[in-house]
Amino acid sequence: MASAIAFDSYGTLFQTERLRQVAESLYPGRGDELFRTWREKQLEYAWASTLTGAYHDFWTITAAALTYAAAKANVHLTGSARRRLLQTHLTLPVYPDVRKALTPLAGSGLQLAILSEGTLTMLRCTIRQNDLQGYFDPVIGSDEIRTYKPAAQPYQALALRLTAAPADTLFVTAHAWDVAGAGVSGFRTVWLNRHGEPWTLPGAAPDSEIRGLAELPPLVRAR
Amino acid sequence: MASAIAFDSYGTLFQTERLRQVAESLYPGRGDELFRTWREKQLEYAWASTLTGAYHDFWTITAAALTYAAAKANVHLTGSARRRLLQTHLTLPVYPDVRKALTPLAGSGLQLAILSEGTLTMLRCTIRQNDLQGYFDPVIGSDEIRTYKPAAQPYQALALRLTAAPADTLFVTAHAWDVAGAGVSGFRTVWLNRHGEPWTLPGAAPDSEIRGLAELPPLVRAR
Repeated sequence: MASAIAFDSYGTLFQTERLRQVAESLYPGRGDELFRTWREKQLEYAWASTLTGAYHDFWTITAAALTYAAAKANVHLTGSARRRLLQTHLTLPVYPDVRKALTPLAGSGLQLAILSEGTLTMLRCTIRQNDLQGYFDPVIGSDEIRTYKPAAQPYQALALRLTAAPADTLFVTAHAWDVAGAGVSGFRTVWLNRHGEPWTLPGAAPDSEIRGLAELPPLVRAR
Repeated sequence: MASAIAFDSYGTLFQTERLRQVAESLYPGRGDELFRTWREKQLEYAWASTLTGAYHDFWTITAAALTYAAAKANVHLTGSARRRLLQTHLTLPVYPDVRKALTPLAGSGLQLAILSEGTLTMLRCTIRQNDLQGYFDPVIGSDEIRTYKPAAQPYQALALRLTAAPADTLFVTAHAWDVAGAGVSGFRTVWLNRHGEPWTLPGAAPDSEIRGLAELPPLVRAR
């Protein structure tokens, strides 16, 4: 029986694909390229930041990655398009299965947490936008840790803020690298594999794999 | 006046775009997606390996990333297609400007080195394929360091193997994150920006920027 559940945010709870739709509406036929490069460079810049020891916050990284993505997609990023895309990033909807899964879990006394690469301000904006205040405690942003997942520090910081031990905590994420990082720190890892992709990351596989958050309750009850 | 030049390999000396052509010949219309995802996941798996502290060698990572990329590109990767793509990776041609730039530099007594994410075996195969044995010493593969750039260890290992100090060594790379890592360790960084992309990585910019290796000699002579 798990006593706590920690979630990744972008791509796990927050529907990043909304950025693709907005990009496509702004730049028909180029939105997919812009979206894909934007997300790819976000991760690359965050990891380069941690690997080189030169910390840059995720909002700075997100804005810089957008500049790169627009150039790569060969679109002219006007000031208003830039504002619209960044505003969309702050106000992403959650996936349709999020609220339905969270309500009974929170009601049963489980501690729910978020450990994200976003800054605390970014996370609070998106949580408020989706009217999910009060569900998650702690909400840990990368600006508190100044080191990006999957380095050990964020997971260790999470462990210190939970009442349950990592071995009694489910760590739910859509990202293979996040499964690997949480696993190293002793969490029970759940890979949210919404698109049925193969597991190919070398090394430890997830403890569990689900296709949607509706499959979480049985995992909570399992030992 | 620089006394040594260190090069990144893939995308800097070795023409990774050859993989795109072979992928496209195998899977018309899907080759670009396969190539792009393959390269993206190579980097992601290497960095996740270093960030989580679970080392996996670059050949293992390259093969795993190919499996993922084939699934993502929705193509059936037969055994023979897999062998052909991996064999192509081992025998990539160098860019057309490589030999012409290297010959006078090597002839003028400069120490030339390679610091790569590839394994030493991968690097030796590609160097031999291009008949460039004898140009580079040292050739440092990631399997010697067991940590991937842009973490500090590979650059520090390079510094120990050069007769010149990092401040007297040009570090030439096509990758922004590699510029950042080499810069942290004190090398004079040269960004080989073949496609005229904007510099958007937050933090330190390169000391110099070139569009092709023909622009290297003046940088060598500059203080």
